Amino acid sequence: MTTDSSLAPTETPATGEQPLTSVGVLGARGRMGVEVCTAVNAAEDLELVAMVDDGDWLFNVADAGAQVVVDFTRPDVVMDNIRFCIDQNIHCVVGTTGFDDQKLATIAGWLEPKPDVGVLIAPNFGIGAVLLMRFAQEAARFFPSVEIVELHHPGKVDAPSGTAARTARLVASARRAAGLPPGPDATREADSLPGARGADVEGVPVHSIRLTGLVAHEEVLLGAAGETLTLRHDSFDRASFMPGVLLAVRQISGRPGLTVGIESLLGL
Amino acid sequence: MTTDSSLAPTETPATGEQPLTSVGVLGARGRMGVEVCTAVNAAEDLELVAMVDDGDWLFNVADAGAQVVVDFTRPDVVMDNIRFCIDQNIHCVVGTTGFDDQKLATIAGWLEPKPDVGVLIAPNFGIGAVLLMRFAQEAARFFPSVEIVELHHPGKVDAPSGTAARTARLVASARRAAGLPPGPDATREADSLPGARGADVEGVPVHSIRLTGLVAHEEVLLGAAGETLTLRHDSFDRASFMPGVLLAVRQISGRPGLTVGIESLLGL
Amino acid sequence: MTTDSSLAPTETPATGEQPLTSVGVLGARGRMGVEVCTAVNAAEDLELVAMVDDGDWLFNVADAGAQVVVDFTRPDVVMDNIRFCIDQNIHCVVGTTGFDDQKLATIAGWLEPKPDVGVLIAPNFGIGAVLLMRFAQEAARFFPSVEIVELHHPGKVDAPSGTAARTARLVASARRAAGLPPGPDATREADSLPGARGADVEGVPVHSIRLTGLVAHEEVLLGAAGETLTLRHDSFDRASFMPGVLLAVRQISGRPGLTVGIESLLGL
Amino acid sequence: MTTDSSLAPTETPATGEQPLTSVGVLGARGRMGVEVCTAVNAAEDLELVAMVDDGDWLFNVADAGAQVVVDFTRPDVVMDNIRFCIDQNIHCVVGTTGFDDQKLATIAGWLEPKPDVGVLIAPNFGIGAVLLMRFAQEAARFFPSVEIVELHHPGKVDAPSGTAARTARLVASARRAAGLPPGPDATREADSLPGARGADVEGVPVHSIRLTGLVAHEEVLLGAAGETLTLRHDSFDRASFMPGVLLAVRQISGRPGLTVGIESLLGL
Repeated sequence: MTTDSSLAPTETPATGEQPLTSVGVLGARGRMGVEVCTAVNAAEDLELVAMVDDGDWLFNVADAGAQVVVDFTRPDVVMDNIRFCIDQNIHCVVGTTGFDDQKLATIAGWLEPKPDVGVLIAPNFGIGAVLLMRFAQEAARFFPSVEIVELHHPGKVDAPSGTAARTARLVASARRAAGLPPGPDATREADSLPGARGADVEGVPVHSIRLTGLVAHEEVLLGAAGETLTLRHDSFDRASFMPGVLLAVRQISGRPGLTVGIESLLGL
Repeated sequence: MTTDSSLAPTETPATGEQPLTSVGVLGARGRMGVEVCTAVNAAEDLELVAMVDDGDWLFNVADAGAQVVVDFTRPDVVMDNIRFCIDQNIHCVVGTTGFDDQKLATIAGWLEPKPDVGVLIAPNFGIGAVLLMRFAQEAARFFPSVEIVELHHPGKVDAPSGTAARTARLVASARRAAGLPPGPDATREADSLPGARGADVEGVPVHSIRLTGLVAHEEVLLGAAGETLTLRHDSFDRASFMPGVLLAVRQISGRPGLTVGIESLLGL
Repeated sequence: MTTDSSLAPTETPATGEQPLTSVGVLGARGRMGVEVCTAVNAAEDLELVAMVDDGDWLFNVADAGAQVVVDFTRPDVVMDNIRFCIDQNIHCVVGTTGFDDQKLATIAGWLEPKPDVGVLIAPNFGIGAVLLMRFAQEAARFFPSVEIVELHHPGKVDAPSGTAARTARLVASARRAAGLPPGPDATREADSLPGARGADVEGVPVHSIRLTGLVAHEEVLLGAAGETLTLRHDSFDRASFMPGVLLAVRQISGRPGLTVGIESLLGL
Repeated sequence: MTTDSSLAPTETPATGEQPLTSVGVLGARGRMGVEVCTAVNAAEDLELVAMVDDGDWLFNVADAGAQVVVDFTRPDVVMDNIRFCIDQNIHCVVGTTGFDDQKLATIAGWLEPKPDVGVLIAPNFGIGAVLLMRFAQEAARFFPSVEIVELHHPGKVDAPSGTAARTARLVASARRAAGLPPGPDATREADSLPGARGADVEGVPVHSIRLTGLVAHEEVLLGAAGETLTLRHDSFDRASFMPGVLLAVRQISGRPGLTVGIESLLGL
């Protein structure tokens, strides 16, 4: 386990002599962008030097001397943003969605002639959610049974959630690697209602609950003879993504090339 | 709220002068029957006078002077047992399954010429489970959203469980009575996997989890703007049914006629 | 169970012909007042006719024709506000804190010559929290063991919370009424750390958790042989108090005199 | 992550050709010993060759050709048992309690002239409990707040439980290593009841709940701005320790020398 205190979610007071890292935010007026600006401003070792959104010049971030750019924009503009930053030798921390293997390969190509520049693209900056997935994956091979419950506000359109589906696939993969058979289940179709046993994601049942009052919650239940292990993550607020974003901002200059996900930054 | 201490699940010490109630057990060697015999033996105000099972004479319970009989037998013999007890002026507490409206009507007919005899038939003697259903029903009309999760060992063949399905119907009925529309749900079929949103029981989603290590558990989640109320019952052991059985044994002599369910005994 | 759909937390569409109820809000610029104004505006059967705060004339609410006033002000001004409203024949729904028996008696005295005016004073307008207390109280006598856990943000200064302490007293009272002995507990002081078993509130252990990320949560755990019943309320947002406030606003004209708490409005 | 399928808790079908491992059980008539005998009998790759308890000859296990001995006896006899096994070149898996640093050093000394013999001593063979501790330790440095709740049957004499106290110390150590300050807590003594905030174990609050119906349960709550991560282990039955015991039996021949705890066997 690393003892690097910069990983701690609290705002570690910077020692006076350490130079500040200059940060520019793209999509600064969006819901996530506003949170990022607030979090950067509150961090003593970071300085917010540029806030850019639709209608602003991208050159602002370069002119302002940003060393790192945080991008929470849109799939249709994020590739241009990343290319611009790489050209300008600015590291990128990207929370915008919509990346596929082809886009990732394109970015990797742009980075080849720039061995010092780092780009991190993460589908989820929530450290808690990432830990949940990691722990579920590690625990999976010790338990014959596993099921996932995800609970969200009723305005969500997809079921199961992307995070729950991803967790299920990681867990299923760990079970296959351990040679585990499917979880035991005596349910008889004739005695059951359709849907009762949830959605099947690579053999792992996933149940989606939609309830007024909830925000975003995920629970992994693992069972063995005489015991269960339950891992649960509750997210109440976008603020929960900021420690992960700041962690990436602080580490990206030391991680040249393309990084996908914040897992490798957590030192697990 | 009643203050009748006989409702308390602890074995209230009987005052020395109070005569003991004589109890016979039918199906005494079955899993539930064994538990009943143990529980009656441990109760200071009850006396176990007859244990009857396949191959024993039913007359034993009458000969032994049983005032109350507890029946955990089988659907194919329980009607004969009840008729015999009514004829002998013995009260019956019945946990055997398989009663429909017609059978209940038959029993009510048998009871007509016997105004002092009581028969109680209950699908569930678990006080916790009955309270859960009751509270869910009472709370339902205050919450736009409600979903039910039931969790059982993987040997269970039906999904959802009978108790969860019954809870869902009670909740649905309370919602209709309050004029509540269906719970909000923006799930789009195109973005979802089949089964993710659970089984539909009169408009209430019910999710069934099957996990090695679990026994029998039920959770009702109610949601309104900014808050949720969660009611959960965990049953680990058949012992959990005994307080309900003893409660019925103690009260049945004061409740002539046919009673279905233990709800009315709880004084709620 | 009542079928009065006006109890439902959704905004029941008012039938066109029904006259609107005119509502004034005192403390309209406070955190709760702002929520009340928003909720009244969103309700089709209510009309917000006056918003009053420090520096505004109290007469505004009378001049605007308010039939009901909602008061979320301060202990040092609320008695004057209530007196004024009673004099003007305006019903009062009061969420301001700090009432003791003497103040309640004073208000009852003011109401005597005004048999048509209603004043409702509630320490908690959260319907979920009130239901939790009610259910815990009803269930208490059936379980030998009961403990309470309350979980809040770390900025809270009191422990246990007022709601948890009140729940504990209600539960303890129900247990005494049922003749239940103290919950079983073999803990030996020599083998224990101080505080491990929580605070003692009339014999009921109460545990207070303070965690960054949490808002306000309460859990009542009830245990009997082989089973547990858990009742949990999670409150994420002040919005959760609004259904209770609106319920009171709608019912207060039919409830002359002094009412304490919203329990009696819930039709339980 | 290892893909060694022998770690899986299910009884992996042994390939027909693989020779069976011969196992002797010391303390075979004790509660844990009986479970171990049952589990060894059920495992296709293990053979139970000797069951020894008070009054039986220890030589039986050697005569029967045991390659591995499992010891669930008593602190006053376990050291003799271990010495005997080492002398006889039999590997030991020990669940008996009461080891301190001096005893461990003595055993290490006995093992020096026997480089092929392995002894594993574990305070807890529950894989779920060990995983919980491990995950809590890994997650600790990412969360400003952490508290622990442990829940047990009311017959338990110590509070907090040994496992919860150990978890708290591991978490506290991980927080110190990360330079985390104490968790935020605005509780004022004047507004609080003694014990409400739990026991203090190296700065981590631990709360102990004792409830009829429960068995052994532990929950670690971690909180950061806008999110919480909850890790919970529920143990219902001694059977839950058997996968850990069998895992040790299968691996001990490949792990000469002294091993404390099953953590290193889990391949985490």
